[in-house]
Amino acid sequence: MDELPVVWENRVRFEETDMQGVVFYGNYVTFQDEASSAYFRAIDYSYGAIAEAGWDIHVVNVDLDYRGQATFEDELVHGFRVATIGESSMTSEYAAWRPADDELLAEGTVTHVAVDGETGDPTRVPDEFREAVIDFQERPPEQA
Amino acid sequence: MDELPVVWENRVRFEETDMQGVVFYGNYVTFQDEASSAYFRAIDYSYGAIAEAGWDIHVVNVDLDYRGQATFEDELVHGFRVATIGESSMTSEYAAWRPADDELLAEGTVTHVAVDGETGDPTRVPDEFREAVIDFQERPPEQA
Amino acid sequence: MDELPVVWENRVRFEETDMQGVVFYGNYVTFQDEASSAYFRAIDYSYGAIAEAGWDIHVVNVDLDYRGQATFEDELVHGFRVATIGESSMTSEYAAWRPADDELLAEGTVTHVAVDGETGDPTRVPDEFREAVIDFQERPPEQA
Amino acid sequence: MDELPVVWENRVRFEETDMQGVVFYGNYVTFQDEASSAYFRAIDYSYGAIAEAGWDIHVVNVDLDYRGQATFEDELVHGFRVATIGESSMTSEYAAWRPADDELLAEGTVTHVAVDGETGDPTRVPDEFREAVIDFQERPPEQA
Repeated sequence: MDELPVVWENRVRFEETDMQGVVFYGNYVTFQDEASSAYFRAIDYSYGAIAEAGWDIHVVNVDLDYRGQATFEDELVHGFRVATIGESSMTSEYAAWRPADDELLAEGTVTHVAVDGETGDPTRVPDEFREAVIDFQERPPEQA
Repeated sequence: MDELPVVWENRVRFEETDMQGVVFYGNYVTFQDEASSAYFRAIDYSYGAIAEAGWDIHVVNVDLDYRGQATFEDELVHGFRVATIGESSMTSEYAAWRPADDELLAEGTVTHVAVDGETGDPTRVPDEFREAVIDFQERPPEQA
Repeated sequence: MDELPVVWENRVRFEETDMQGVVFYGNYVTFQDEASSAYFRAIDYSYGAIAEAGWDIHVVNVDLDYRGQATFEDELVHGFRVATIGESSMTSEYAAWRPADDELLAEGTVTHVAVDGETGDPTRVPDEFREAVIDFQERPPEQA
Repeated sequence: MDELPVVWENRVRFEETDMQGVVFYGNYVTFQDEASSAYFRAIDYSYGAIAEAGWDIHVVNVDLDYRGQATFEDELVHGFRVATIGESSMTSEYAAWRPADDELLAEGTVTHVAVDGETGDPTRVPDEFREAVIDFQERPPEQA
């Protein structure tokens, strides 16, 4: 997780806890989604810019390993980087941890597909987006 | 609550509980919203029919009293009736309870405003909707 | 809303939007709950301190007026102040707005009851808490 | 998905949609969690029985492929079966689809670990649970 740029931070909400006293595991998908959006803002190609450029993004896979537990008011940080980009799909690495005790909470991948904003059909990830990713990341994504 | 027609039922989800071991109180707003949608289906004027008829519905007030607590796997029922209809707004009564021990969990009101589907401006609640409400309810709504 | 101390800020999550393209109204209850917790941290009597002191807090009423709409990535601020404190209950004022265009989104009240951490029975709001509220707020709460 | 026993059904809530007009993909984790709980009830070894028998369940991995999209008021069904059981972990297959047009929406796996209710340490999945799974499923789980 040390290699992932930190792109998003949050404090655990009361609503996010469950009767086991910890963050309900499904909420890490929401956290990963916000980390993804924050990454897009960080590379200066936000969700709004995606819409303006006439494409959209769909999630086709989420794969998360749960490593630890967080509770109400814990301060969490979230890392995210694009690991591979193919013609129309890209897979990113994600991790959530708690700096207070350096505990890893969840890590895994999310795979997005670029679709045409009108038809919804898969479309090539635009070169401007690829360049923004390369400019931002220390390690460039692999070509899939 | 005995006077309210039962329009929706659910079993409490694990995700809906919080670290106090009970349903997070904000979830009753979602329950009330589903009771509202179920009421619209029950009077045969569903959300889809609203859109087709060119109007839409916005919530302008929610007022809920919390009377009891429910936990994971509890089976709940929800009552709903339109209490008053004015020109463009209507206020409905809502209650949630648990039949297993007849405990009242939450009760209150929600106020909707009819808006034009295009402009978003308040518009008269259509007569067809008013008639559907009167046909369904034992007690007709008051005119506001 | 100008009179309410700002205690919490957030950026609207994609998950918080609904098919009307705006924040689902039920989420403002979660926002109000986080504003409440942030207020408790601000007066240096956080939820953890409440538990340590042997009491707990239950919400008995929420009353929210919806004034405007927010969408994905909007930056919101939330004001909160305790308006009245009685023996075991207290009612607080809440408002959410968007500084970018100074639009008010939601405002209303939440009523909490102090309960004994063991028995769950209503208990007197501790004097330490009352003093912390008075120290923090420009306008002291009314006695109910 | 035809081989998975249907254990849970739901109607999509308005709150579960997002600004793309479809169910936010993170909600399928909640659906899978409810399918899991429904499976436990179906084999007559519910979450309550797990707690009584002194163990608890933690999710250690979720892996979901998104195949289609659902929207407000769609009626969905959810299949679930335990695919493999090891000493303390078990992996289950999950799928969600919409019978109205027979469209597959999501499918994947969830991996649970049995932990001691007191210590939280991994513990052997009890034989009573294993037998309940074998009695319920047409195809018995593999031994991992």
